[in-house]
Amino acid sequence: MATALQDTLASEIEAMGRKARAAATALATAPRVLKDEALRAAAATLRRQESAVLAANERDVAAGRARQLTPALLDRLALDSKRIAGIARSLEAIAELGDPVGQEIARWQRPNGLDIARVRTPLGVIGVIYESRPNVTADAGGLCLKAGNAVILRGGSESSHSSAAIHACLVEGLATAGLPVDAIQLVATTDRRAVGHLLALSRYVDVIVPRGGRSLIERVQAEARMPVFAHLDGICHVYLHSSADPAMARAIALNAKMRRTGICGAMETLLCDRSVAGALLPPILDDLARAGCELVGDAEVMALDPRVGAATEEDWRTEYLDAILSVKLVDGLEEAIGHIEAHGSHHTDSIVAGDQGAAATFLARVDSAIVMHNASTQFADGGEFGMGAEIGISTGRMHARGPVGVEQLTSFKYQVRGNGQTRPG
Amino acid sequence: MATALQDTLASEIEAMGRKARAAATALATAPRVLKDEALRAAAATLRRQESAVLAANERDVAAGRARQLTPALLDRLALDSKRIAGIARSLEAIAELGDPVGQEIARWQRPNGLDIARVRTPLGVIGVIYESRPNVTADAGGLCLKAGNAVILRGGSESSHSSAAIHACLVEGLATAGLPVDAIQLVATTDRRAVGHLLALSRYVDVIVPRGGRSLIERVQAEARMPVFAHLDGICHVYLHSSADPAMARAIALNAKMRRTGICGAMETLLCDRSVAGALLPPILDDLARAGCELVGDAEVMALDPRVGAATEEDWRTEYLDAILSVKLVDGLEEAIGHIEAHGSHHTDSIVAGDQGAAATFLARVDSAIVMHNASTQFADGGEFGMGAEIGISTGRMHARGPVGVEQLTSFKYQVRGNGQTRPG
Repeated sequence: MATALQDTLASEIEAMGRKARAAATALATAPRVLKDEALRAAAATLRRQESAVLAANERDVAAGRARQLTPALLDRLALDSKRIAGIARSLEAIAELGDPVGQEIARWQRPNGLDIARVRTPLGVIGVIYESRPNVTADAGGLCLKAGNAVILRGGSESSHSSAAIHACLVEGLATAGLPVDAIQLVATTDRRAVGHLLALSRYVDVIVPRGGRSLIERVQAEARMPVFAHLDGICHVYLHSSADPAMARAIALNAKMRRTGICGAMETLLCDRSVAGALLPPILDDLARAGCELVGDAEVMALDPRVGAATEEDWRTEYLDAILSVKLVDGLEEAIGHIEAHGSHHTDSIVAGDQGAAATFLARVDSAIVMHNASTQFADGGEFGMGAEIGISTGRMHARGPVGVEQLTSFKYQVRGNGQTRPG
Repeated sequence: MATALQDTLASEIEAMGRKARAAATALATAPRVLKDEALRAAAATLRRQESAVLAANERDVAAGRARQLTPALLDRLALDSKRIAGIARSLEAIAELGDPVGQEIARWQRPNGLDIARVRTPLGVIGVIYESRPNVTADAGGLCLKAGNAVILRGGSESSHSSAAIHACLVEGLATAGLPVDAIQLVATTDRRAVGHLLALSRYVDVIVPRGGRSLIERVQAEARMPVFAHLDGICHVYLHSSADPAMARAIALNAKMRRTGICGAMETLLCDRSVAGALLPPILDDLARAGCELVGDAEVMALDPRVGAATEEDWRTEYLDAILSVKLVDGLEEAIGHIEAHGSHHTDSIVAGDQGAAATFLARVDSAIVMHNASTQFADGGEFGMGAEIGISTGRMHARGPVGVEQLTSFKYQVRGNGQTRPG
């Protein structure tokens, strides 16, 4: 009986995959105007259906309270008029983005007269697995649609009613534009085994994008039978080189840690050259402590400020996602790079330096998706990069690395134009 | 006992992976001049060691004869002075290619003054699994090295002595340039289980490139726990649109099929618009038949030439890799595209047409790695595309699609340059 139910679930997920593949074929050549019309109609529907979406969200929030979710989780889950307006505006902003499909990435001529163009195409079918934030339903659905991809969304059970209500608006947008409604599907069941079936569906799903906590990402990376765009950790470093401008170092360190402590681009470890630590660090540690940041460090850092606690080896590999910072002294660029490579997560790392040579070495040698010179790690964001919006940040090396926006949700093909060329020999 | 041996083999392969990862880290920032020196020194060593390489090859060929390999396989396997010179020249040609590592793919400024560059980096560690041609040892090793990647090579057992001799020359090239000799490793054992261990080594191997027959590709695609750059089939079509120039159609059809019948870009199915078949096809069928091509087709094609046999449904999905062609009439562009999507392998497909609108529709809608207008499908080749050399052709949609040359063997990172920017809000 359990097996029969399981089989039913597997075939339901497989049927979604099959429908997604068919929708993807139709979407691949859909003109921009229809995709944008679908996005704008979805935004309009969302505004019109505000009370229905809020009612659905109220069911989720009530259930979350009953399940004693933390205030932080309840806040992520809750919608109000302002948040719904924000979701609608995001959909309209995606409509404003250029259409990546058909865009020429490169074009060249061969001596025999062949004209070769590398042109963006959709990737195909994308699976997005996410946790409590219901706005991901609209953002991920909208970005995938814009890039000509079909998408299968699987939200968290705690936001299931909200996601279903938002998804209904997206489907209405697709229908209004005359696009296949299967282009954006939502896994309705809250049965957790549905995720396993989705991760096995490599026949229909080309890539999986997980959005959520570490345990979700780990499960997806371990089980997925298709490529995954994700980052497990954002253990981001700021390294203060001996040539750093003190005021700049101070501003960047405070911002990189404290602007938002819960995002993946927040600094988790501050490295500082030993030779300048006595002059550079005290005001920075003071800024951070006054801003409410807990500090841990090695013995020399502890000696600089009594508020600094002792760091353990574990601290150097910890993503706090909170107002906590580990601080360590190093003997120059080589040791800093070595520490980052040994303890970091290849997400975003920044050097503050006046010395252009040191900066160039850091940018070339640190093997992270994003490397920065004289800028806050909090800029690690698709919007800040000018990509318009992102579905996530990837630390993988295949296909997409760094912020994943509409362009990273595409593949490409070669278009070769000739006038009758045949190949000799 | 068998289990203990198996465990030993697994840990040997794992040790190779670990050494490859360490070598990749060193190679990632190796300057172009050293990589090129290693390639040129390997070529020089290969010329100097010609007699040793030929002696090793003679052992493989003798064993192949004893195992009664087909003449075609023995020819693939056999080396002579001329072929060794060709392999050495290929290594020197790779040295001449531009270094993709550090190349700027894109660069833009943000309103806040941040300068963002997308810069090529190596992929990491590449596993190459190939069959009898011993030259793949040098070509694949050289291309991976040029792109800053470490590589683990696994050649076929029938060419094991030849591959080992060529590999020794590559290692000597690395040593001459002072680069890590683990950058190009060869799995020495002919134990077939080594392939399974390599395909499971996702911790150390970032991508697998299989080169060989269908059964090898199928096994790799089924078992690999990392991305695979490959194509299973090259079922390439030429479609003669009603607006095709007759002389051009004739030249392209003959070349696409008969220049070389055993390469993946060879035409396997010819489609022709029904409205012009009576005028267009007879001279083309005659050319092909006279050139020794076996023809099969639907009833209408059979009626055009008595030498055409009956095609079965199976023919439309068969990669002959031989002097055989299936021919079918269609009612215009839509049916042609539908046939290609339903029966093709998304490798290379070409339209012959004078009508620019029809050609544009074909290039946009046919979902293949390479789509062509008025050119022979035999141009589906990295060298013909101007990439210098290729490690293979991929029909996958992730990361690399079409010919896989040095650029496709790279990843990228973002370098962000600021002057003290912090993120507001």
